[in-house]
This record gives sequence, C-alpha cells and structure tokens, in this order.
Amino acid sequence: LRQGVPEIILGESKSLDQLKTIIAAMQRNGSNILATRVDAEKATALCNQFPEAEYNVDARAFCLIQQKIENSGAGKILIVCAGTSDLPVAKEAAITARMLGNEVEELVDVGVAGIHRLLAKSDQLQKAAVIIVVAGMEGALPSVVGGLVAAPVIAVPTSVGYGAAFGGIAALLGMLNSCASGVTVVNIDNGFGAAFAANRINRKG
Amino acid sequence: LRQGVPEIILGESKSLDQLKTIIAAMQRNGSNILATRVDAEKATALCNQFPEAEYNVDARAFCLIQQKIENSGAGKILIVCAGTSDLPVAKEAAITARMLGNEVEELVDVGVAGIHRLLAKSDQLQKAAVIIVVAGMEGALPSVVGGLVAAPVIAVPTSVGYGAAFGGIAALLGMLNSCASGVTVVNIDNGFGAAFAANRINRKG
Amino acid sequence: LRQGVPEIILGESKSLDQLKTIIAAMQRNGSNILATRVDAEKATALCNQFPEAEYNVDARAFCLIQQKIENSGAGKILIVCAGTSDLPVAKEAAITARMLGNEVEELVDVGVAGIHRLLAKSDQLQKAAVIIVVAGMEGALPSVVGGLVAAPVIAVPTSVGYGAAFGGIAALLGMLNSCASGVTVVNIDNGFGAAFAANRINRKG
Amino acid sequence: LRQGVPEIILGESKSLDQLKTIIAAMQRNGSNILATRVDAEKATALCNQFPEAEYNVDARAFCLIQQKIENSGAGKILIVCAGTSDLPVAKEAAITARMLGNEVEELVDVGVAGIHRLLAKSDQLQKAAVIIVVAGMEGALPSVVGGLVAAPVIAVPTSVGYGAAFGGIAALLGMLNSCASGVTVVNIDNGFGAAFAANRINRKG
Amino acid sequence: LRQGVPEIILGESKSLDQLKTIIAAMQRNGSNILATRVDAEKATALCNQFPEAEYNVDARAFCLIQQKIENSGAGKILIVCAGTSDLPVAKEAAITARMLGNEVEELVDVGVAGIHRLLAKSDQLQKAAVIIVVAGMEGALPSVVGGLVAAPVIAVPTSVGYGAAFGGIAALLGMLNSCASGVTVVNIDNGFGAAFAANRINRKG
Amino acid sequence: LRQGVPEIILGESKSLDQLKTIIAAMQRNGSNILATRVDAEKATALCNQFPEAEYNVDARAFCLIQQKIENSGAGKILIVCAGTSDLPVAKEAAITARMLGNEVEELVDVGVAGIHRLLAKSDQLQKAAVIIVVAGMEGALPSVVGGLVAAPVIAVPTSVGYGAAFGGIAALLGMLNSCASGVTVVNIDNGFGAAFAANRINRKG
Amino acid sequence: LRQGVPEIILGESKSLDQLKTIIAAMQRNGSNILATRVDAEKATALCNQFPEAEYNVDARAFCLIQQKIENSGAGKILIVCAGTSDLPVAKEAAITARMLGNEVEELVDVGVAGIHRLLAKSDQLQKAAVIIVVAGMEGALPSVVGGLVAAPVIAVPTSVGYGAAFGGIAALLGMLNSCASGVTVVNIDNGFGAAFAANRINRKG
Amino acid sequence: LRQGVPEIILGESKSLDQLKTIIAAMQRNGSNILATRVDAEKATALCNQFPEAEYNVDARAFCLIQQKIENSGAGKILIVCAGTSDLPVAKEAAITARMLGNEVEELVDVGVAGIHRLLAKSDQLQKAAVIIVVAGMEGALPSVVGGLVAAPVIAVPTSVGYGAAFGGIAALLGMLNSCASGVTVVNIDNGFGAAFAANRINRKG
Ligand SMILES: Nc1ncnc2c1ncn2[C@@H]1O[C@H](COP(=O)(O)O)[C@@H](O)[C@H]1O
Ligand SMILES: Nc1ncnc2c1ncn2[C@@H]1O[C@H](COP(=O)(O)O)[C@@H](O)[C@H]1O
Ligand SMILES: Nc1ncnc2c1ncn2[C@@H]1O[C@H](COP(=O)(O)O)[C@@H](O)[C@H]1O
Ligand SMILES: Nc1ncnc2c1ncn2[C@@H]1O[C@H](COP(=O)(O)O)[C@@H](O)[C@H]1O
Ligand SMILES: [Mg+2]
Ligand SMILES: [Mg+2]
Ligand SMILES: [Mg+2]
Ligand SMILES: [Mg+2]
Ligand SMILES: [Mg+2]
Ligand SMILES: [Mg+2]
Ligand SMILES: [Mg+2]
Ligand SMILES: [Mg+2]
Repeated sequence: LRQGVPEIILGESKSLDQLKTIIAAMQRNGSNILATRVDAEKATALCNQFPEAEYNVDARAFCLIQQKIENSGAGKILIVCAGTSDLPVAKEAAITARMLGNEVEELVDVGVAGIHRLLAKSDQLQKAAVIIVVAGMEGALPSVVGGLVAAPVIAVPTSVGYGAAFGGIAALLGMLNSCASGVTVVNIDNGFGAAFAANRINRKG
Repeated sequence: LRQGVPEIILGESKSLDQLKTIIAAMQRNGSNILATRVDAEKATALCNQFPEAEYNVDARAFCLIQQKIENSGAGKILIVCAGTSDLPVAKEAAITARMLGNEVEELVDVGVAGIHRLLAKSDQLQKAAVIIVVAGMEGALPSVVGGLVAAPVIAVPTSVGYGAAFGGIAALLGMLNSCASGVTVVNIDNGFGAAFAANRINRKG
Repeated sequence: LRQGVPEIILGESKSLDQLKTIIAAMQRNGSNILATRVDAEKATALCNQFPEAEYNVDARAFCLIQQKIENSGAGKILIVCAGTSDLPVAKEAAITARMLGNEVEELVDVGVAGIHRLLAKSDQLQKAAVIIVVAGMEGALPSVVGGLVAAPVIAVPTSVGYGAAFGGIAALLGMLNSCASGVTVVNIDNGFGAAFAANRINRKG
Repeated sequence: LRQGVPEIILGESKSLDQLKTIIAAMQRNGSNILATRVDAEKATALCNQFPEAEYNVDARAFCLIQQKIENSGAGKILIVCAGTSDLPVAKEAAITARMLGNEVEELVDVGVAGIHRLLAKSDQLQKAAVIIVVAGMEGALPSVVGGLVAAPVIAVPTSVGYGAAFGGIAALLGMLNSCASGVTVVNIDNGFGAAFAANRINRKG
Repeated sequence: LRQGVPEIILGESKSLDQLKTIIAAMQRNGSNILATRVDAEKATALCNQFPEAEYNVDARAFCLIQQKIENSGAGKILIVCAGTSDLPVAKEAAITARMLGNEVEELVDVGVAGIHRLLAKSDQLQKAAVIIVVAGMEGALPSVVGGLVAAPVIAVPTSVGYGAAFGGIAALLGMLNSCASGVTVVNIDNGFGAAFAANRINRKG
Repeated sequence: LRQGVPEIILGESKSLDQLKTIIAAMQRNGSNILATRVDAEKATALCNQFPEAEYNVDARAFCLIQQKIENSGAGKILIVCAGTSDLPVAKEAAITARMLGNEVEELVDVGVAGIHRLLAKSDQLQKAAVIIVVAGMEGALPSVVGGLVAAPVIAVPTSVGYGAAFGGIAALLGMLNSCASGVTVVNIDNGFGAAFAANRINRKG
Repeated sequence: LRQGVPEIILGESKSLDQLKTIIAAMQRNGSNILATRVDAEKATALCNQFPEAEYNVDARAFCLIQQKIENSGAGKILIVCAGTSDLPVAKEAAITARMLGNEVEELVDVGVAGIHRLLAKSDQLQKAAVIIVVAGMEGALPSVVGGLVAAPVIAVPTSVGYGAAFGGIAALLGMLNSCASGVTVVNIDNGFGAAFAANRINRKG
Repeated sequence: LRQGVPEIILGESKSLDQLKTIIAAMQRNGSNILATRVDAEKATALCNQFPEAEYNVDARAFCLIQQKIENSGAGKILIVCAGTSDLPVAKEAAITARMLGNEVEELVDVGVAGIHRLLAKSDQLQKAAVIIVVAGMEGALPSVVGGLVAAPVIAVPTSVGYGAAFGGIAALLGMLNSCASGVTVVNIDNGFGAAFAANRINRKG
C-alpha cells in the first residue's frame, strides 16, 4: 500500500488490553495511528498511556500522530451533514479523511426540510472533488446534493431517528434508491468507510 | 355521512359478476359511483354494461357519474408527483378527490434530484389548502414540500422502484421519518386514501 | 412561518450542554420553547437553570413559556388514547398541540376490546375538528374512530406491547392498513408529529 | 382418531395425477374426503372423474361425501368475516367445520369501520360455542369480538390488502397483539386450521 | 363477565405508584387480583404494602387472593414445557389458569430432541381437556403434541434462544406453520394469553 | 479435485442456448454431467439434442452419464423427507448424491405430526453414515432425527407452505435453532448443496 | 451538466407509446440516447421505429447513437463479474459507462470459490482507474477485490440466487459489511448506477 | 450415546443456583462437564465452588475435567477465524471440540480482504479432516475456504459488525448463499454447534 497511510484499528470489539498492545507495537513502527469506535472510558486509559495522543469524543476517534501528514489528495473532500445529531458520524469521516492525507471541509445542518440553507452553499458544493453526505431519518439529502453536482457523492446513512427509522434502515434504503444517478452508499454510521472511499477517489493519479 | 358523497368500491378483490351486481344496485339509487383498482379487462366489460361510465386506464379507476358533483371544499387540493412512473397513483388521488367534491390541481415531474423544478412552483405550493405528495424510490419529496409550506401535507409512497425499493417500503419508511414536521402518511400506492384524507381536511367547517 | 409559533427542539440526541446553549439563545429571543424527548435527568438540570420552565415527566416534554399562547385554531383537537400505557405519547401530542395554539381535549382508556366505553363518547368525537388516535399493540382504534366521524383522523402507533408487537411495527402496519378510509399515520411514538399535523389542519383559513 | 373424521388432503402442492390416485384410494375406503386449496382447473378434472363430488370455487374446496355427516359438536361454530374479500377463507373454514361434524353459522361484512353492524348481531355472538373471526388488512375484528364474548375466539388473518398489508403480515401481527385477552391465532389464510381447532374445542366431552 | 373472575393487570408498563393505586382500589372491591410482568423490585414494594399477597419471581406474577378460587373448569389444563429456560412463561400460564379457576398440571423438559421423554407421558397427554405447549428456539413441540392428542392445543412461543431465534420469531413461525392440524398460537412469551384462551375453552357449558 | 466427479451446472439462470453450448463441451470431455434446476421446457429441448440423457421432472435434474459411477462413499447417505410436497428437494439431493458416487436410501412421509412413523424406522436411521433431512413448514424434523442418531445430520428447509411459512424462512429458522446439537443447515430448497456436503463427509479417508 | 452526456431513460415503468414519444423528441435534439430496463418486446417495436438504434438483449439496453462518443475519462473502468448469471447487470454497467464516454474492460467468471482465477488477473486489476464489481448470492467478491487494489471499488449486488438470497438482499448486506475498507455500494441490479458513479469518479479533473 | 461424551450445559439462561445444583450432580457421576455461555460473574462463583474447574473468559466456557479425554477422532478439526473479533466464537468451538475428544488446530486473522494470508496456509487447510470457518460482517471466508478444500466445511456466522450487519444476519445469509458447494451453516455465534457437528463427522467409523 501507499507510504504514509496510517494504521487504522476498529476499536469497538477490542479490550483495553488488546488496544494497548496493538497501539504500542504500531507506535514502535513510527506509524500514525487511528482507532475508531473507541468509547470514552477506554480512551481515557489510552490517553494516559499515550500522552501525545488525542481523542475526539464525538467521533469516538483516537489519533496518535507521529509523522506529519502530507496533503496528498487531488482536491477537497466536502462533508455535508443533515443535522446536528448526525455530527458524530460526520466527524469520524472528517478525521479519517484528514489522517489519510486529504483536505476536508464540513457543511453542517443543511437538511432537506430547509432546502434554502443547502442551496445557499451552492458554490462550496461545486468546488468539491468528492462529497460525503451524512444523514439519518429519511436520508434524503444525498439525492438533492447528487442532483446539484457532477462530482462523486458518497452517502452515509446514520442510525439517528426513532420508531420506523429502525436504527438507520430507513436512511439506508432511501440512499440506495436515490433518484439522483450514481450516488453510492456505505454501511450505517460508517463515516470511516465513506472517508476511505473518498480517499481512494481523491488519490492523485 | 354527507350528502352527495359517492359510493366507492375497492375493485381489486371482486369478480366481474360481483362488480356488476354492486354497481347496478348503486345505479338504481342514483348515486355517483367510483370503483378503484379495476383492471382494464374488467373495465371493458363494465363499460359495455354501463355505457355512461368512464374508465381511466392509468388510475385504474371506473367512474359512473349520475349527479352533478358540487365543489364543496374550502380550498384547492394540490397533488405533487415526483416522477412519471408515480402518475397512476397521483391520478387515482386526483379522481377520488374530484369525485368527493374538491377542486384539484396537479404538479408532475418535480423530483428532489432536480430541486429547481420544484422551487419554480413555489407560488402554486403556497396557495394550496391541502397538498398530497406522491413519490416512489426514496420518497424524499414530502420532506422538501413540508419544509416549504404551512398547509397539511399527506405523503403517498408508491411501489415504483426495484431492488432495495422493496415494493414501496423504502419510500414508506422515508416518509414516516420525514424531517419536515407534521407530514402524515398513507399506505403504499394508496392514492385513494390520501384523497379521502385530504377531503376530510378540506370540508367547509 | 406564522408568528407566535414556538421553537421546538428534538431533545433526544442532544447533550445537556447543547440543550442549555440552544435554550438560552432562544430564551433571549423571547420565544416560547418546547423540547421533546428530554429524559428526567437532563430535565432536572434544565429546570434548575431555567426555573420558570416546566417539565412533564410522562411526556418527557420541557416547556418554557415566555409569551401568552393564543388559541388560534379553528376548532378543538381531540386526542383519543387506547390504554394507559399509551399515555406518554398522547401527552406529548397534547402539550405540543397546546404550545402551537390549539384547544385540546383528551379521551383515555377507550380501547377496542371494550368498545362500549368508546361509543359512550360519541358526542365528544363528533364535535372535534381533528382527532388524534394513539394506540399500541394491534393499533385498531383509529379504524373504529375513523368509521364514526367525518373529521380528519391522525393515527399514532406506539411502541407499547411485547413479542410480536415489534416495538410498534404491529400497530404501525395496522394503522396503514386501516379499513376506515382516509386515516393518516405518523411515525411510531411520534406524538409531536401528530400534533404538528393536526395544527396544520386546524389553522384558521 | 375419532370415527367418521374425513380424510383431508392439502391440494396445493399436488399434481392432478397425485390427487386422482390419493382420492381414488380414499374413495375405496368409503371415507368422506376433503381436499383444500385445489385450483379450479384441477377441480374440473377431478369432478369429471368423481361425478358425485362437489367443488366450492370460492373456498377452493373439493368434497366427496360418501357417508352422512353426523353433527357431533357440543355447540354452534360461528364464523365472522370482516369483508367480502375475506370470504374465500371464511368459506374454507365453514366447509371444513361442517365436514368435521359441526353446525356452522356465518356472519359476513361486519368490519370494524362500521362497528354498529357488528353490535347489531350481539345475540348471535353470545350464543356461539366457538367463534372464528376472519379478517385481512389491519385484522382488528377479533379484538372487538373477543371483548364482547366469553367463548373461545380463533382469529384467521387473511392475505387481503396491498402495500403495507404485506400479504397478511399486518393482520397476523394485529391478531397476535390483540388487546382482547385469550384470542388465539392460526396461519395467514388458514381457514382449514381454524376450523380444525374449533372442532377440537367443540367435541362433546 | 363471569363471577369470581379475578381482576388482571398488565404490570409491565405501569409505575409502582400506578400499581399501588390500582391494586388498592381492587382490594377494596374484594376481588382476587393478578398482576403479570411485575419485576422483582416493584414486587418487593408491593408485597410490603399488601402483606397478604404472594409473588412468584420466575413468572413475575403478583397475586392477591381474597376469595377462595373455585375450580370451575370442565377438565384439566396441561401445560407442557420444552426446556427449563421456558419455565417462566409456563409458570405465568399456570398461575393465570389457576387464578381463573382451573385445575392445572405441568410437564417439563420434554423437548423434541429427546422425544422418548415426551412419549413416556402419553397417558397424561391423553387425559387433558386443553393442552398449552410452551417452547422456544425452533418451537417444534406443539407439532408433535398436536399429532398425539385430539384435545385443543395452544402453542406459546418463547423468546428463549439466540442468534437466528430472533427473540422468539423462529418459534412463532414454527408454530404458525405447524404440520399438526388445528394448533393455535398466541404472542411470544404470552403465557397469560394462552391460559386465558384455555380458560375460555374449559368453561363448563 | 477427485477424479470421476461430475460436472455440475446450475441450470436456473441459463438460457437454452447457453445450456446446449456448455453441455456439448462437457460431453466432448467424456464427463458425467448434472444440471440442476432445469425447467421442463428446456429439458425437453435438451433431451432431444442429447438423447442419451435423462431428466427427472420432480427434481428438475438433467443427467448425462458417460462413465460408470463408482460407489466411492464410506457408508450410506439416508435422505429423510417430511411430506410428499418436499419430495422434489429430496429427489434433487438423492440424484446429486448418487452422481457424486454415494449409495443413497430414501425415507418419505415421516413428519413430526405422526411421530410413530418415524420411530418405526429407527434401525434405518441408526445405520446411515450421513442423514439429510428435508422439511418445509415448521422444519421440525431435523431436531427429532438429530436427537435419535449420532451421525452427521444436514437439514434442508423447503419453500413448501404458505402464509407465515414465508417461502421457507420459517423452516430455515427452525433448523438453525434446532435444539438437537450439531445439526447443520443449507439454503432453502438446496437439495444439491446438502448432497454435496454429505458427499464431502462420506468420502473414504 | 457536461456536454455530450447522453439522455438516459429508465424504460421499466414506461409504456411503448411513452417511450416512442420521448425517444423521438430526444432524437430531434441530436442527443445520444440510452434507455435501460427495456424488455425484448418493447425493444423490437422500438428498433422498427428507430432502425439506426441497437438493442442489447442481455443488458435490456436500447441505444441510439447520433454523435460520436469521445472517450473523456481519466483512466479505464474495469467491470469484474462473479458468475455468468450476473452478466446482464455487468453488461448494463458496461454499456452505460461507454455511452458516458469511458473506456471499459470486462473480467468475467472470477468468483470467490475459485479464487485463483481472480488472482491470475492481478495486473488487469492494478491498472484500472475505477473497478465495478458485480456479484450475486453471497456478494463476497468486492471484499477480495477491495483488498487487492487501491483504486475506488463500487459493488453491485445482483438478484441472482434463490432461497435465502432474498432477491439480492444477501449480496447487498454482504457488500455493505465488506471487510475491505472503502467499498461503496449501489442498489440491487443497478448496473446503470454503478457506471454513473464510476463516470463521476473518472472525469478528467 | 458414545461413552466419555461430556455433559454439556447451556449456561446462558440458568441462574447461579441452578448451575451449582446441576454441576454438583454431574460431578458426582464422574462426568466431564462443559458449560457454555457462562458470564464472568457466574464463572467466578462457580470456580470458587469447584476449584478444579477452569474458565475461559473469551469463550465464556466453564470446564470441569474429571476423566482424561481420549482423542477419538478420525482426523484433525481445523478452526479458521476471519478476524480477532470473531475469536470468542472460535474459542467456544475449539474448547467444545477438544472436550468431545478431537484434535484441534486454529488459524486466526485470515480474512478475505487480505487473501494472501489465507493462501499461505494452504497446506494446513488441505490436511484437515473437518474445517470450521468462523466469520462476521459479510461472512465471505467459508466460500473461499470451501473452494480450496474437499473436506467438510462448517460455517459459523458471528454477530460481529454494526449497522447493516444486523447482529449476524448479513454473515448468516452470506454463508447460506455460499457459491462454494456443500458448505453447511449453524446459528449465529454457535461455536458449540459447529464443534458438535464437526465431532459427528469426525467419529471414527
Ligand atoms: N419528538 C419529535 N419527533 C420528531 N421530530 C421532532 C420531535 N421534536 C422535535 N422534532 C423536530 O425536530 C426539529 C428540531 O430538530 P433539532 O434542530 O435537531 O432540535 C423541530 O423543528 C421538529 O421538526
Ligand atoms: N388448507 C390447509 N392448510 C393447512 N393444512 C392443511 C390444509 N388442508 C389440509 N391440511 C393438512 O394437511 C394434511 C394433509 O397433508 P397431505 O398429506 O400433504 O395431503 C391434513 O391432514 C391436514 O393436516
Ligand atoms: N437502470 C436504471 N436504474 C436506475 N436509474 C436509472 C436507470 N436507468 C435510468 N435511470 C435514471 O432514470 C432517469 C430517467 O428517468 P425517467 O425520466 O423516468 O426516464 C435517468 O436520468 C437516470 O437518472
Ligand atoms: N452454546 C450453545 N449453543 C447452542 N446449544 C448449546 C450450547 N451449549 C449447549 N447447548 C445445547 O444445550 C444442551 C443442554 O441444554 P440444557 O439442558 O438447557 O443445559 C446441550 O446438550 C446442547 O445440546
Ligand atoms: Mg437526516
Ligand atoms: Mg420518487
Ligand atoms: Mg392499543
Ligand atoms: Mg379486514
Ligand atoms: Mg424449545
Ligand atoms: Mg414439513
Ligand atoms: Mg456471486
Ligand atoms: Mg468477517
């Protein structure tokens, strides 16, 4: 794989001890390290052990940067987020994309029920090289964005919502059936995956 | 019930013989008659027997009008339709609403992937007393409309789509989780029900 | 939007700090404020900070009223509730409808397994301008009510029940398939949405 | 098993040849024979071969009676049916119950959206030894009936409906979650099974 | 309703205060009282307040008996239970059936993977007036029992199991599709409902 | 792979032309050929072109045998089938297992609702090296068989049934949750896969 | 939008008359025209009317090319297809991508059960600018491909399979949960959408 | 059953007291004892009472060995595990298989996104008598393994994953639809069942 790519750990299903062992080994290699889905309790213990690390509580992302990250992307990745409740997933995407060497912009609280707030940002949308759209509930935002731009659009359904949101199924289905052509979709709450896909796209040929 | 309200028959699960018997009996009462979900084959036979009737093949609606329908609604019902594939359901709603004594307008092919076509109709949207929004696939249109108007919005998911559209489930879930407040929803492909609900709302106090 | 409409916050996915910041800002604007889905713990802290506020523990609704609410509706909104377990959702609907400037009546414990208790209230049903019907388990009550009245009927499925109730799916499907014409439906447990829809209907033309 | 019980064949998944062979063998034993779920085409061929047989096209039931059926039940079985579309399932139940030696009454078109039609039949409901309630769409009728009588109530969901009826799932879930205590349920469209269960109950001790 | 029938409360969704108020009112009427789905914590508080009451921790059933319960059933109700994990549901059924005035027998740990244990109890099965079969996982036991007896068989799926048991769905579907004719089914974990249905059947004509 | 193993084609999604081309090529290699899920119409055309082939209409299996099949298995494979409607799947398994070089026995119509028919075959069950159990509806048979023998048991759910059988889901879930330890499961209607698995097991070490 | 982009019609839900009207209008504009999901019967009629058009029966794609298509992509799009049954979807993707001005390569019959066939094509995989992976059944191929290359990978689940394939749900879920990072997914059978997304990516900056 | 087979207890749904009683009784019989799905808290108490026992915290397995376990299998059972998060299930399988008298090898962290790690172990795969493949997320590993070996392959889906992994459904469906012939499947997270099935296969004829 490419040089400078960080080591990335899925923190969720690992014990504190497992995480410490893995991170310590990676640290010795001098790699940059990103652990996603690390809960706050484990993060506190990890930050004690690795004081140079940083933890983003919203994104549940643990970062240990040992080498300067060079911006190696062809253009900007724009992350568009429907509501404030979707922010943790958007933040996970932003941190991952930056760790992978991309310039990232964020556009928040531009849901489809207040469409003019989104349309007011038309310029920013047109300039992005890749757009990640994060939305829960009915997951309609990627359709509107996909209809406004020619760039690649990656949709991330979130588990935000209740009742018939079914933990993100409503948003997932909405996005898979987007009437805007060529919108692609990742797993529910998978900000990491969307950023990784955006990074695959944004590599300088 | 109110005077002048037509007799309405759900044609789908009835044999031609059953339909003939029921319609003939209602005809003798002098009522207006609407039969929904009547397929083209049965309709041909019915129109032979009841030559004064009319059949709308898209809406699969059979109408036999024996009394002038008086427009008895408080305002206009606007039917907004995402794509041409959703037209049969929109037509069923329009015919039902008219048979129930309402003035109806239709607005077609204003899906969310081409949002400016919808926004260009802002005036028409603002003037409606009740709005029925018909959409398949991701069913996002009611959220945008609901964010633009203060009037009641009734969403009708359609079975248009394939794969993960699951015969209208994607659109149904999208509408139930609309981020626009106070959008209500009826069954998949239930143009009839949406019009009946709109009529309940549009009755002159 | 109309003047006097309260600011409404979806409390569920917001931290205490976020809620405090948002509410304080709205308070400075002099608005009435309603926050739904606020749990008891957060509510206690909020009521300390905003002593003039009130919290309804059943409805999980936090209200801060700074301007007199004028009853601006065309008629009464009646909220009908199948069982005592459905009361929290009914209460959320009632509080929301009142905050939006409507006169509200409530009718509780009139489930379909004891149909005569409902029929005894026939007068009250006939006088309502809009009826919200809240029911869990099999969600049958809106069909009976919809067959008794000509007014708009909004059905709210609740997550009350166990086993094959599937957290409200049974009630939701029941209501979407109501054999009473023109019943519309909102998301599971969405008392807020039902009230908002009723308010859209009940605005004075 | 009890004497005089008919041989019962599930016709659905059997070829015409298989059915002819099985029925001919049973005929030689002098048994009464009931074949359920026999489509009209196969039935025509069977009635040619077995001219003394009868076929009920609605119920899709083929009956060959060789011995007088004695009414051996303790009381009457009442079959209550929500709408005319549910009649095929109700008929299958009625024919099965009669073939098994029970007296059967039928009560049709008493759905919950017109509750007074059902209440007008209160006497008939009170006199039944066992009640089978057949309903599609939201499947609410058993709850109302179960609240009116002390006798056993067996609910049969039908596949009548469209969209979110999901081929009978909505009715099935409604019945499993009935708020009337002690309603039991059989498979979707299983009129046969409901009659067989009613017969188990109605045997003279 | 019949005399001597206890008042029955669904404890699950009620607060301790609500339960105290309801039970105290019923106590004043001299009724026997059964509250189901009462958790251990609430039960302790209730037993303090009503010292003559009894609580069965497995069944989560709270009973307050003020009148002698007369056995008023036509025959015995037999409760058959597949495994020890299904016992809480079986116990709820047993207690409910006894409170309703029936003689009850229990047969435990006779699952289908050790079929000879069940067959060894053939006599007991043949003598029962009504049989309730409680089983989780694949829910196969009612099919075997239904094939062995002529009496009514009521199947209760339990939420016992993991993975593709889906909280009782596997057992529920198994029971609805039983190849033994005339088995009826109640909701997942609904021991109460099964007993209530058995009681409807077991009433002396 | 092993010598003498036939070429196996999944016929379902292939056109007649594609099938002809593939089979002709394999014929030139001198292989034995099995095509599963070939419908009767295509089979007629294929049998015209390859007159030495045989077609089993129940199993929808097309066989072209060019080399003597040697029985190379360690023991007998027994195929147990719940009802006659499950026979097509059982036949597909039998034909596949024989084509793969195994001795096969079949045991039909031994469903769990008539458990004594199965128990009467205890000897045959004990002697089998591998047992394939084919059942639809509630899919309970593998649990009983798995409790009677120590040999490997492979369960095949079939799509036989209606309503809540959901095209084999009920049987599939039942089998995955079997209370008999160590029963393994293949896809719905996958007689082929069960036989292939049995053959993997039955190879002489 | 970009110049030279063809007009694309979703043929599925349009009548022959509607298609003729739309295509004739587009023809007058001189556009290239692609209609997807056009069945063979409609296609024959269309090709009669538009003799210069071509129809690909596998892909169900109707193309009318009036202007030379210039290859305007940055690199090659590689379409990898698991099995021959998935070919129609792969072909729809290939045709769409070519109509949109991309160079396309195809790699067929490289499913995961014969992994060496895929690995033998390593060079071709490494050279692609974007890879579309089409697979049905368990949909595992994108995970393997995603682990081998750094380029963007778009996964298309197909409805190929039976039983628990559930019309493409198994493949869809597999792809959404891919253990290869940054694989994105489109709707079941949506070769068109995958190609459109690949084209968004492959545009020359 | 065979001599020396351990007593196996499903710990999950049993109280500490129940477990103590059952284990003490089995201990008196001199049996080896395995209790699966015992949580750490209960295990501590059990290990105090039975000091010669051992508890594996990852596998949640409690073992009390009183007789030497003889290796009585025909060959080795190989347990292949996709990722470290799947280890608990793999460990449950390994412990169960060893307790049942089999030689077991383990191969960890060979997921399909890094296919070369698996291929490097080709020798070990070829030598196994039975292979158990444990994988979560998309569950693709058994297809690759099944394509590489002729031995029996038992697939165990795990509940590892989030979002559209649906607690193991994605992996379960993937495995049921494996394109490698003759892969069999057990319940989600059922390491015990896979080992029991492998043991059935591995018995010396
Ligand atoms: N209980 C509720 N259920 C659904 N939507 C709600 C609820 N409460 C508030 N809302 C909506 O959420 C919006 C506020 O969202 P937020 O900006 O995240 O606080 C309000 O304008 C309402 O549209
Ligand atoms: N309509 C039906 N639905 C469900 N089960 C039925 C039906 N008709 C017959 N059966 C059952 O199927 C058995 C006969 O099955 P078979 O031997 O396949 O004809 C009868 O004894 C009944 O138990
Ligand atoms: N096979 C397909 N699947 C999904 N969307 C399609 C397909 N073919 C065309 N479309 C989309 O449908 C739009 C045209 O829709 P319509 O105006 O209804 O013909 C195109 O611009 C595409 O966005
Ligand atoms: N982890 C497990 N998953 C599924 N079944 C198990 C498991 N552990 C034990 N069993 C089965 O449960 C039986 C014991 O159940 P019980 O008598 O309830 O302890 C054993 O004989 C096995 O058949
Ligand atoms: Mg959103
Ligand atoms: Mg649409
Ligand atoms: Mg209710
Ligand atoms: Mg009905
Ligand atoms: Mg069980
Ligand atoms: Mg069966
Ligand atoms: Mg495939
Ligand atoms: Mg995995």
